[in-house]
This record gives sequence, structure tokens and C-alpha cells, in this order.
Amino acid sequence: MAEKKLVAEITSMDEDFTQWYTDVCIKADLIAYSHIKGFMVIKPYGYAIWENMQKLLDDRFKKTGVENVYMPLLIPESLLAKEGELVNGFAPEVAWVTAGGTEPLTERLAIRPTSETVFSDFYKDDVHSYRDLPKLYNQWCSVVRWEKETRPFLRSREFLWQEGHTIHATKEEAEQRTQDMLNLYADFLANDMAIPTIKGQKTEKEKFAGAEATYTVEALMHDGRALQSGTSHFFGQKFSQAYDITFTDKDNKLKYVWQTSWGTTTRMIGAMIMVHGDNRGLVIPPHIAPIQVDIVPIQQRKEGVLDKAYEIRDLLAEKGFKVKVDDTDKSPGFKFAEQEMRGIPVRIEIGPRDIEAGKCMICRRDTLEKFDAPLEGLEKTVADLLETIQKDMLKKAKAHMDEMTYEARTTEEFKKHFENQLGFVEAMWCGDQACEDKIKEDLGVTSRCIPFVQKNLSGTCVCCGKPAKKMVIWAKAY
Amino acid sequence: MAEKKLVAEITSMDEDFTQWYTDVCIKADLIAYSHIKGFMVIKPYGYAIWENMQKLLDDRFKKTGVENVYMPLLIPESLLAKEGELVNGFAPEVAWVTAGGTEPLTERLAIRPTSETVFSDFYKDDVHSYRDLPKLYNQWCSVVRWEKETRPFLRSREFLWQEGHTIHATKEEAEQRTQDMLNLYADFLANDMAIPTIKGQKTEKEKFAGAEATYTVEALMHDGRALQSGTSHFFGQKFSQAYDITFTDKDNKLKYVWQTSWGTTTRMIGAMIMVHGDNRGLVIPPHIAPIQVDIVPIQQRKEGVLDKAYEIRDLLAEKGFKVKVDDTDKSPGFKFAEQEMRGIPVRIEIGPRDIEAGKCMICRRDTLEKFDAPLEGLEKTVADLLETIQKDMLKKAKAHMDEMTYEARTTEEFKKHFENQLGFVEAMWCGDQACEDKIKEDLGVTSRCIPFVQKNLSGTCVCCGKPAKKMVIWAKAY
Repeated sequence: MAEKKLVAEITSMDEDFTQWYTDVCIKADLIAYSHIKGFMVIKPYGYAIWENMQKLLDDRFKKTGVENVYMPLLIPESLLAKEGELVNGFAPEVAWVTAGGTEPLTERLAIRPTSETVFSDFYKDDVHSYRDLPKLYNQWCSVVRWEKETRPFLRSREFLWQEGHTIHATKEEAEQRTQDMLNLYADFLANDMAIPTIKGQKTEKEKFAGAEATYTVEALMHDGRALQSGTSHFFGQKFSQAYDITFTDKDNKLKYVWQTSWGTTTRMIGAMIMVHGDNRGLVIPPHIAPIQVDIVPIQQRKEGVLDKAYEIRDLLAEKGFKVKVDDTDKSPGFKFAEQEMRGIPVRIEIGPRDIEAGKCMICRRDTLEKFDAPLEGLEKTVADLLETIQKDMLKKAKAHMDEMTYEARTTEEFKKHFENQLGFVEAMWCGDQACEDKIKEDLGVTSRCIPFVQKNLSGTCVCCGKPAKKMVIWAKAY
Repeated sequence: MAEKKLVAEITSMDEDFTQWYTDVCIKADLIAYSHIKGFMVIKPYGYAIWENMQKLLDDRFKKTGVENVYMPLLIPESLLAKEGELVNGFAPEVAWVTAGGTEPLTERLAIRPTSETVFSDFYKDDVHSYRDLPKLYNQWCSVVRWEKETRPFLRSREFLWQEGHTIHATKEEAEQRTQDMLNLYADFLANDMAIPTIKGQKTEKEKFAGAEATYTVEALMHDGRALQSGTSHFFGQKFSQAYDITFTDKDNKLKYVWQTSWGTTTRMIGAMIMVHGDNRGLVIPPHIAPIQVDIVPIQQRKEGVLDKAYEIRDLLAEKGFKVKVDDTDKSPGFKFAEQEMRGIPVRIEIGPRDIEAGKCMICRRDTLEKFDAPLEGLEKTVADLLETIQKDMLKKAKAHMDEMTYEARTTEEFKKHFENQLGFVEAMWCGDQACEDKIKEDLGVTSRCIPFVQKNLSGTCVCCGKPAKKMVIWAKAY
């Protein structure tokens, strides 16, 4: 099928994937650039996607006992500095407040780059006994990190996220929570965003500053680059010792709590664009689509056409679908292209002849297929189709990820792969950070994770040839 | 009924209303102080109230066509300065970012104290034709204002709010939106928060910096002090001229847009506490209560008691009520006091004898009344009771406001009133700001608003004796 571009001129993804991505962000009305570098405006259509994602994630969190709170935006420098690794990790990218009104401050305040320190400082006074544990708190907010290079959703100086911070009486419980949240993210990404991921542990080099262990879900974009799509950290007692968060346990002894944190961000919208989008624009999974069904009346000035369109809208809206009628005076062709750009999962076309025949035309955004459907039982047809699209989108993305996942057994194979193409590469590693550093320097490739599902591809490290300890997933990443 | 304090020792509101307020904020687990002056932690129970308020307000907004967006947290000083009145109004209380990472910034960035400037800067590029209008955008976010004196919810250096910013092709449409949003706030406050308000216009002295007209809903706290609970501003073309927001109208002429903004904040939680609370703690209106019904099993170790409590919980939860069972090992008396402190609207007590008799005991938090109710049809009893409580709380608050609303016809009456008591005082005003200044200096009293419903109490200004123009509502305020 010819890839006609009827509305806005977006660059072809095959020509220039980076430019295609930026074009889609702008032309699909997700964002606008603001007048400060690295800060973007999230427009209504983009924000509505985020609201849908928030709702689905938040419901999942709450089912596991998580409660939402709100913590201060600003962090005194001395508080931030208490856990040395964290402050060293974030210091180069913190925005500093130095004056309040007309008065200079006696101590600099950081705009939160993340809130481990603030939660720890709060928990310190809030928890006394094992009866107070666990605390399973989360907040939805914005954070600021002074990144040098910025791109919409993927890397910006301000972004929206949720950060969960939990404390527990035992190591086992904290470890379990870390795993549970990683699984929750993977499940949300798969079943609501139709994005398959690989679950694994970050290496020492790639883990979060201050964490004992960082777990990640890694997704593969259409172009073969990786995107870290959610992380869950096990802190052990590092923060509780630095911030003195103790409790009296059942055995009447004073102990340090065990801590986790876990987060996902508006970056996931970037993943959605780059996993599902095509040369016509966005393709949004039905579960998070702000508009699931768009109805286009054909020959809308003919008697009864608009009425029928509104009737179908009301019928579907009543069943809980997000549906609208495009009754503007644009041409149908223009409307189709606009809907395709915006990635609306299902289009219904209805004209005088359809009405006469008691049917309508249905078009799927994901496959661009079209078929006739009887008006009778339309709500069932639409309900089934939306779930089919949701599942098919995951299948398609999974097939693409599998297709672009390779094995490399030797140094030569590994090098040759990345000199010629992208994708996930499974290869063995000795466990030495020097090898990671070398691979990054030579090839621009990073270790994405040590996947939970391990294979034994060979006995030796793909970099140095020494005995291998783990299989690692490697990729060029966003 | 004796005002026993079974759980936490809170100061009596009759002894020290200010201390009572702070005690309730802390003991009802709404907030904790953070380690930065003027920044508070909103704890799960406080945040759940805010989430309920957000949901109800957001649904109301969306029904009027409003869409949510997200705008940058930081504002360049030069952008903030474009509209002179606004920057002068906010300059003394802006927090300034002067460094990003290790580099000093070339221009200071303000943490948003409000976002008229950012929205205007965005609209400037986003709008071209009358077809693009109106734009009805809103954002939920936090803002920072470097206040000198701070109190939980009422005045803090950071607070959560929503700020709506709309632009329109005509003056009439913008004026209508300003009024519509004020009415929406008044309706939400009355019907969801059970808080009656007086609607009116702010005087020139009290209006928002940069606005042509500011409208307000003013509530009266239990102690007789006023609290501004929501504002809606008509900007005319002030911002569109300063920020150059133009559009081509139907007549093909380039015109400036007409603009509004409107906001409500976590302050409304402060109003809820001070309007409805009593010496046992919070009283939360059912529509915004995180827990609407708390079930206390009596003699819970006896066979069948806990099972029955869970059965009732499941029955009510299925009907959509927010309900929990307090099955901790605390004594019933302790549980009662704790629930009362947290303002849970309805308590159900159920013990072995109740089960035998097929009934339970129901207690209303607002009136502290108790009565037996048959288990059969309990969901209907509870549904009706929650709506009764919701309505009765508004009635009670309205009666209290009416009782504490006075008229003053002469300077002497006016002075004498405020020397002896609080409350809303209706009195005539000449329209001269010098009189407002004098009244504030002499009595600590401010003009709350020029109410839409005017009375002609006398011909002369209550301050200077010159001919009066308007009736004003005066009060000491939070």
C-alpha cells in the first residue's frame, strides 16, 4: 500500500528515524518546544495519553497497597549530600535555587532530581516500630536534571514521572517488592502499552547511584535501539544507615529498615512512538488512546448522515468507549490522514449508501485494513476489534524484537554486528567493568542488562576472552 | 455530650483555634513538616483527600471542554518581566534558579509562582486563526512562592493547585468563561466540600496582579475568619498585548485574544478542616472522604464477628462505597476516637448480639448520633445516610456563616464590631483605596469582595463618610 502523506509532511522513518520521531511528536500534537532549552510543553493530546497511563499504573500500584503522597520540590544541599554515591551521581545535573524573593539563601536548594533523600528524611521521623512497616509510598511529580543533549520525552531537563519509595522490616520483603514492581512495569508495558521488554539486572557500571541492585525493563525501538523503560532499585540499608531510619523490631532490638525505589516516566511515551509508529504517524494502543474510535461521516451534508454518526457515537460512548465524530468541514481524505497521524486505533466511515445497507466501513490503524461491518451489534464488533488490535500490536512488536535479537559468540561476531546493524545482542561477559568501558568506547554500545533468563553461549567474555560469568544484552541505546 | 479526647491530645478549638488547627493537621495524619521552612509533606490520608477533590474538579472542568496540559516549571526572568504588573506583584516571592549542574546560568530562571507568562508565550505560537479559538487549557502542578509566614495548607512556600488559562476570540466569551469557572468553584465547594461561599469581585487593591478583574469565592471559617477559596480572573487583552498573542478573525483582521485564568489550591483542604472540624478532630464531607465507612467489630475474637464485618465491607464496597474494617487489636474505644480524629463520615459497629438480632449500630461523625439499623437493606441505609450527611454539613455550615454575617451602617458600628468579634461584615464603601488601607491598618480587616448580591445599607462609606458606591464584605482573613 502506498504510504501517502496527506496532511503533514513527516520525514520517512527509513530515511531518518531521528527526524521522523521529532516530526511525529510535533505533527501529532503531542508536544511543543518551550523557550527554555530542554523544557517542553506537553499539549492536550500528549497529556491525555499520559493521564491514561497514569490511571492504569496508579490503579495497579494501589492494588498492591501503595499510597500516594507529596514531598517537597526542593532539597537542601546538606540533605542531598548525606548519601555520598547519590549526590556524586546527580551533582553534575542538579538545578540550584540560590535566592528566595529578594534575599539570597544561606544554603543552596536543589530542585529534586529524584527524592530518595527527602523520603528518607521523612521516614526517619515517621517510623518507630515494626508495626509501622512496611511503608509503601509513591508520588507523581516532575523532576529536573540538567541534561546536555535533549529530545522530546526521551531526555529532557524536566520530565514527569512517578517515584515509589518503600521501607520494610526485612531484606526478603524489600527484595520481593523490588521484583514485584519490576514485574508490574513489564506487565503494564506489555498489556497496556503493547511494548514487550526484557527483564534483567543492571551491571555495577549502569546501576542507579546509591543502589545495591538495579533491575530494568528494556524495550527495543523500531530502529533497533534500546530504551530503558522502567527501573526498580534495591537499596539494602544504604539510605537507612545514611539517614538513620531505624525501628524497634519484634525482638525489641533497634534495626535499620530495608529500602526500595522504582520509577517510570513520560519516556514511555517516547517508547510507544518508536515501537508502534509508522510513516503515517502515531499508532496508539487502544488501552491508552485518548480517542479509541473516530467516526467520519461521508457526504455529511446529506440528510441523516450526521444524525447516524452521532447515534453511533452515543451508542459507543455509552458502552464506555472513547469516541468522537469528526464533523468539521475538512475533506474525508484529510480527516483520514489526520486520524492516522494521531494514531487513533479505529476509524468508522459512514455514508448514505452504508446507512441504506445497514452497515459501515471500519478501518484499523495498526494494519490499515478496511472491512464492512453491520450496524447491528456494532458495539460488540468494536469492543472485540479494540482488544484484537491491542493484542496484535504486542504480537507484532514482540516479533520485531525477536527478529532483532541476535547472539554473538566471539569478539569478531560481536564487533561485526554493531559495525553493520543495531538490535539486542546477547553475548557473554567476564563481569569486569573495563570490558564494558571498552565496548562503549569502541562501539558506542552499552550493557542493557543481565537478563533473568540466561543462556550459556560460550565460555569466554566477548571483549577480553577471559572466562565468562554472565550473558548480557548489549545495544546502542537512547 | 462530653468532648472526650480518647486518642491524641488536641487543643480545644475554643481555647486556641490556631493551635487546634495545627494539631488536627498533624494528628489526623494529613501532613508532616519537612526540614525546609514552609515546605510540607502531604501524607497519604491528606493526599487521598486531594486526589478525590482533583477527580471531582477535573471531571467538572472536562465537561466544560477544558483540556489538561503540562507547562515548564521554570520561567526565564525576561519572559516573566514582559507583563510589568505581574512581575512586580510576584518579584518579592519568587525562588530563583541560578545554576544548572556545575555551570552558572546566563539568565536567572524563576520557579513558577503562577504560569500566565508561560501559557501566553505558548499561545503566541500556537494560535493563528479564529478557528483555533477558544483554547481551554488547565494544568495540575505545584507552585512556589517565598512566603514569610507559613501554615499547613493555608500559606506555604510550595503548594499544589490547578491553574486554568483560556484564550478567546471575543471579550464576551472570555467574560462568560470567567463567570462560569467562578460558578463551577462555588458549586464544587458547596456540593462536594459542603462549604458555602459568597461570590463577588475583588477591589482594585485586592485583585490579582495583571488582571482587569478578579472574582472570588469567600468562605467563613468556624472561628469567623475569612478564607479566599478560589479565584477567576479576566485579563482582557493585557497579556495578549504584552506577549503578542494575535489571531486572524473572520473579518480577516489581526486581533489580540481575550484571556482568563482561574485557580484553586490545597488551601481548600484548610477550609474543609476549619469549616467542619470539631474538638474530636476532622469531619470530612462524604463526597471527598478517602474512607466513607469504617466498620468496627465488637468482641472481634468471638466466632463469626470478623466474618460478618468483612461481609458487610464487601457488600458496601461492591456498591462503590469506600469502606474498611478496623480489625487491629486496639480497643473499640480507641478505634472510635481514631476514626473521629480522621473525620470518617460513618461508623458501623457490629458485635455478636447485633448479629443475632440482624442489626448493627451506625454512628454519624458530623452529629455524633448513633442508631440501630437492620442489616437487611444496609447498603440503602448507608447510601441515604451519606447523602444526608453531605447535605446536612452544608446546611450547618451555611447556618453558621449566616449567623456570623453582620451589617454595619456606621463607622462606629463597624469599628466596634471588629474590636469585639470576627465574621463577615457587610458595609458600604466609597470606592477609594485609601479607606481600604486605613481599615486594614486600624483593624487588620480586609475587603473580601464586592458581592454580586448587593444591598443598600446606607448612603455613606463606613470609613470616610463620603458617598458610598458599593457594599463590600469585610473580614479578618487567613
